[in-house]
Amino acid sequence: MSQNQSSYCASITADIEAHLKQLIPLKPPLAVFEPMHRMTFAVPPNSAPALCVAACELVGGHRSHAMAAAAALHLMHAASFTHEHLPLTDRPKPKPTVHRDYGPNIQLLVPDAMVPFGYELLALSDDPTQNTSGRVLRVITELSRVMGPQGMVDALYRELLVGQLDGGHELNDTELIEDMCRKKEGRLHACAAACGAILGGANEEETENLRIYGFYVGVIQGYINRVGRKEEEELERVKELRNLALKELEHFKGMKVEEISSFAFSF
Amino acid sequence: MSQNQSSYCASITADIEAHLKQLIPLKPPLAVFEPMHRMTFAVPPNSAPALCVAACELVGGHRSHAMAAAAALHLMHAASFTHEHLPLTDRPKPKPTVHRDYGPNIQLLVPDAMVPFGYELLALSDDPTQNTSGRVLRVITELSRVMGPQGMVDALYRELLVGQLDGGHELNDTELIEDMCRKKEGRLHACAAACGAILGGANEEETENLRIYGFYVGVIQGYINRVGRKEEEELERVKELRNLALKELEHFKGMKVEEISSFAFSF
Repeated sequence: MSQNQSSYCASITADIEAHLKQLIPLKPPLAVFEPMHRMTFAVPPNSAPALCVAACELVGGHRSHAMAAAAALHLMHAASFTHEHLPLTDRPKPKPTVHRDYGPNIQLLVPDAMVPFGYELLALSDDPTQNTSGRVLRVITELSRVMGPQGMVDALYRELLVGQLDGGHELNDTELIEDMCRKKEGRLHACAAACGAILGGANEEETENLRIYGFYVGVIQGYINRVGRKEEEELERVKELRNLALKELEHFKGMKVEEISSFAFSF
Repeated sequence: MSQNQSSYCASITADIEAHLKQLIPLKPPLAVFEPMHRMTFAVPPNSAPALCVAACELVGGHRSHAMAAAAALHLMHAASFTHEHLPLTDRPKPKPTVHRDYGPNIQLLVPDAMVPFGYELLALSDDPTQNTSGRVLRVITELSRVMGPQGMVDALYRELLVGQLDGGHELNDTELIEDMCRKKEGRLHACAAACGAILGGANEEETENLRIYGFYVGVIQGYINRVGRKEEEELERVKELRNLALKELEHFKGMKVEEISSFAFSF
């Protein structure tokens, strides 16, 4: 990955963070906004929000057009992450709690506020003078599907079942890993890229190409998250996935492909 | 309350239930949809979804125009109720778990799927040929605000704090009860009535009158939920609230006020 590509990602991520900081001021009720602020910014990085912005820019949209969707994606990721780490009694391999200061109740309630807050940002981002309502509603549908019963929650449930089967040990079944990467990070990044494309004014074909590109980017991220760079077989698979991802970008010849292609490399 | 009024409420409630049954079939992933189905229909009744439909009909809208919003309100109420009853270690006065069959993980995850599912229904209810996008986006904003950091989550957090102050005993401070009824049931019913009005094509003034009517209806419901019919002082307050509520309906002279007025009576 070139210096340019890396600084492109960094500049989008910084813009999303600055946008979120403006949106979540420390205002009343402080008992909700203060932990919401902490939970929003303490979450491990996830490339889906930045990919959403990059997809919007690739198809000629302005960065600001995708900013609400990127913020919503980040908030939903942070909410899901916090709930995933809630200390519950029936988790076979409980993840370490990330917000011990607050206790389980706040870790349950505050993410329940972050999700509607994300939808509010999206709905308010509509600009009736620019005739964007249809695009915004489509993005709300896309995001709802990826976070709903056939999306993220299905993936988290499978992860839970695999944890139970596995008796609490590390995963080493390649097929299972691929399946989880597809259902969790794959779906999320596919949705993020498609949303960015829609908001940037892409046509249907461009949107679907970017959705597939996002899917492969997500699966790569899933592998890196799960097995790191240690396992050679997985690394081979990452190379294959990268080639599949980059192939989707061939549809965008003549456009600024270099910037968005960086997402197919681990960073 | 007359027989007519009571059967009006019952007919709306039955229609919402039938609509939800169609929307949540027992399809894959069954591990998510089966408990989602149960959690949706096992929740104690809440009059906000039916009030949303009644407000839509009062201003001349068709019942079907408010059905997605009513379903979303019901799903969000059911999700919030299930999370409220999650067995967590730091609850001073834990509520009885309602879905013991599933264990805490499913009680956490499935409501996390129900909320986006509600937003998806709303976004998909837009009919571009009828130019409804603006209304649907406004309703999404209204619902997000009432479920977000300054709405339901703030109310639940206050309820939690009051429970801690109270050392686990029953509440008997009238001011505290009124505050909680206003912040929880009051806000939710105000939002429900306003959403119904918006979807029914009400003007701004009608929407605001119905929002205030909904607010008083919610506070009445809150009192009935919390103190029942035993405490005379509270009953006096309920009478006052009922008069305030009915006063708002005077703005709708010549319209079918009788039906919606039943919501100001406990049922």
